[in-house]
Amino acid sequence: MSRIVQKYGGSSVATAQHIQRVARRIADRRRAGDDVVAVVSAMGDTTDDLIELARQINPKPNPREMDVLLSTGEIVSSTLLSMALEAEGLSAISLTGAQAGIRTDQVYGRARIAEIDTARLERELTAGRVVIVAGFQGISENFDVTTLGRGGSDTTAVALAAALHADACEIYTDVAGIYTADPRVCPQARPLRDIGYEEMLELATTGARVMHARAVEVGALYDVDILVASTFDPAAPGTLIHRETTMEQGNKVRGIAHQDHIAKVTVRGVPDQPGIAARIFEPLAAGGVSVDTIVQNASVENLTDLTFTVSPGDLDRALEVINALLPSIGGSGVVSAPDLGTVSVVGTGMASAPGYAARMFKTLFDNQINIEMISTSDIRITCVVDAHRVGDAVRALHAAFELDRG
Amino acid sequence: MSRIVQKYGGSSVATAQHIQRVARRIADRRRAGDDVVAVVSAMGDTTDDLIELARQINPKPNPREMDVLLSTGEIVSSTLLSMALEAEGLSAISLTGAQAGIRTDQVYGRARIAEIDTARLERELTAGRVVIVAGFQGISENFDVTTLGRGGSDTTAVALAAALHADACEIYTDVAGIYTADPRVCPQARPLRDIGYEEMLELATTGARVMHARAVEVGALYDVDILVASTFDPAAPGTLIHRETTMEQGNKVRGIAHQDHIAKVTVRGVPDQPGIAARIFEPLAAGGVSVDTIVQNASVENLTDLTFTVSPGDLDRALEVINALLPSIGGSGVVSAPDLGTVSVVGTGMASAPGYAARMFKTLFDNQINIEMISTSDIRITCVVDAHRVGDAVRALHAAFELDRG
Repeated sequence: MSRIVQKYGGSSVATAQHIQRVARRIADRRRAGDDVVAVVSAMGDTTDDLIELARQINPKPNPREMDVLLSTGEIVSSTLLSMALEAEGLSAISLTGAQAGIRTDQVYGRARIAEIDTARLERELTAGRVVIVAGFQGISENFDVTTLGRGGSDTTAVALAAALHADACEIYTDVAGIYTADPRVCPQARPLRDIGYEEMLELATTGARVMHARAVEVGALYDVDILVASTFDPAAPGTLIHRETTMEQGNKVRGIAHQDHIAKVTVRGVPDQPGIAARIFEPLAAGGVSVDTIVQNASVENLTDLTFTVSPGDLDRALEVINALLPSIGGSGVVSAPDLGTVSVVGTGMASAPGYAARMFKTLFDNQINIEMISTSDIRITCVVDAHRVGDAVRALHAAFELDRG
Repeated sequence: MSRIVQKYGGSSVATAQHIQRVARRIADRRRAGDDVVAVVSAMGDTTDDLIELARQINPKPNPREMDVLLSTGEIVSSTLLSMALEAEGLSAISLTGAQAGIRTDQVYGRARIAEIDTARLERELTAGRVVIVAGFQGISENFDVTTLGRGGSDTTAVALAAALHADACEIYTDVAGIYTADPRVCPQARPLRDIGYEEMLELATTGARVMHARAVEVGALYDVDILVASTFDPAAPGTLIHRETTMEQGNKVRGIAHQDHIAKVTVRGVPDQPGIAARIFEPLAAGGVSVDTIVQNASVENLTDLTFTVSPGDLDRALEVINALLPSIGGSGVVSAPDLGTVSVVGTGMASAPGYAARMFKTLFDNQINIEMISTSDIRITCVVDAHRVGDAVRALHAAFELDRG
């Protein structure tokens, strides 16, 4: 008998019929003898609908109130799944994040889990119940509801698996696992059988939306093996995210990630002196602009160019902030480009093999795709390119790194 | 500076625009210097929609899960109203039933409030915030969500007014107060300026749906004056429910209540012996049949007829239970009538003036409305009549008892 934590995403519980299908899957597992804790997201577009309702009432809704509001979506689906399990003849109970003992800090909208008090969870499991936990939410010290940010139910599931010492953590979604690239962009993409935590993190943060990056971090921290698989195609094996042990696998590019919509801002002719970056990026953060990649060019005559990317929705605000700063920091000008995207090559093998970067740049050049900006990590190379060439870049790189072959 | 508890019903917060209107009303009150705690119901038909969703998944949903599910409706509206107040420039916070310290027993679906821990409420009021409380819900000893039954937000408001020693409790709804009869049935009906707790209770339990009966009970118990008034017609004075002190008012019929749909069951020829009622009504209760009025006729040759009313939806189940019982209790037969209604005359004056009953019966006779059954309390006379004559009966009695004149 194993202890299993499962997570079902919003598209898996979008309607009453979907919820009944999920209940049958859980029931099969339970009848096979496993203890099951299932984490659920809100039904379908519920979260977006609630956000829209809030914005009609207040364009800048209070983050505390927003969290309480959004948390109801997962509570609704958790109770319905519990009812569906009872209709299947099983004993089940739904728990809110608070009832499941998920204690967080008080950073509304992107709270982090501080600890999980598993007393009630253990009690319900001992009583033979399937426990359904409302994902994406917790409770702060002050007994206020918090949410973990979009995709937070993944984090709930992995953290519960760690706290409950579960034998498996299974993330069920509407795709068959982690692909070598987004199959909607690259028809040759195929699901990976497994992938390391670090690679998965790089893929998740550079555009692969299947898995919440923080969930992967928690998995890495507590060594939780995470299976990402299809809710409605039980035959597909899915992808196991785990601590990579096979040295051979470490020598390959594992996947191509991409982002369709980013904007780029370059501050020209900034004096290259200590503290200059802070003087630019602190006001941006204070203005609510989330900055993605930052690149600073080598300086010429003690002047340098600083380039960073933001989401297109933040571009106007970013330019306002920078233009206001310009006189005091002594920059010579600002240029921006709104219609860009990124393409990233990810794989632990790249850390020690410089040839990967060269092959990436040559592939883009061969396809006449201009590189606007480059940033790298140990196991990732990201190029900023024209938005309308992102798809071409993904397909070309997928072929160039032989990901089509499996 | 006064401390005010207000309650806004589902129709008052049905849309984003409605919520903004309610927020402006509260903001006016707050700016006038009052401390405000506002209790809200779920938006419009939310509760019915959630019940329907649950029944699609499980025809007999678990009551604990049902309570968690339904509680989300009030949480949603409470957060939205809080956001709307902040858009008006006020400081506001929403609290769930649990956060507001509303502790109940564990009877899901119709929990009763055990106590209210006002610590957090007091803290938020002291911080200068308008406090929005999700109505209709509380939390049990085991930290499980409970609901107080349909209309329970009224009870939340009155109980909070008592616990907070509020200066006023105001129930805002889509009508202008408590009417002498249902204005949809009786165009001559007019709002009462005030009414006693006992009279209001009798009206509420015999068909006046404006006010939850348990809220009136709590009001009577803790001497909370309750103003029932229109959300969107601030000029209408509303009706004050309070401890009646004017002896003169005690001498009048105050209102006519009615129920459109009830069914009647008569058990014939039952031996008139101690314990016989229990042997009939205990199995009915166990079978989930909610019995309303019970009448037992004088016995003839030690045999009696027992008649009771149920909702039409419970009639089949009631007949099943009674038919199964008949051999063991020795009754001679069962008859039922499905298409009945009730009309009730309510007023404290009736307690000492027998002429009221005679006038009621004569009025119905003059209008050729047959009385199927009669039951009375100290301050109420109820007649069961044909369902299609209920409207005629209400109008005739409203005129006969001179309620048209005000």
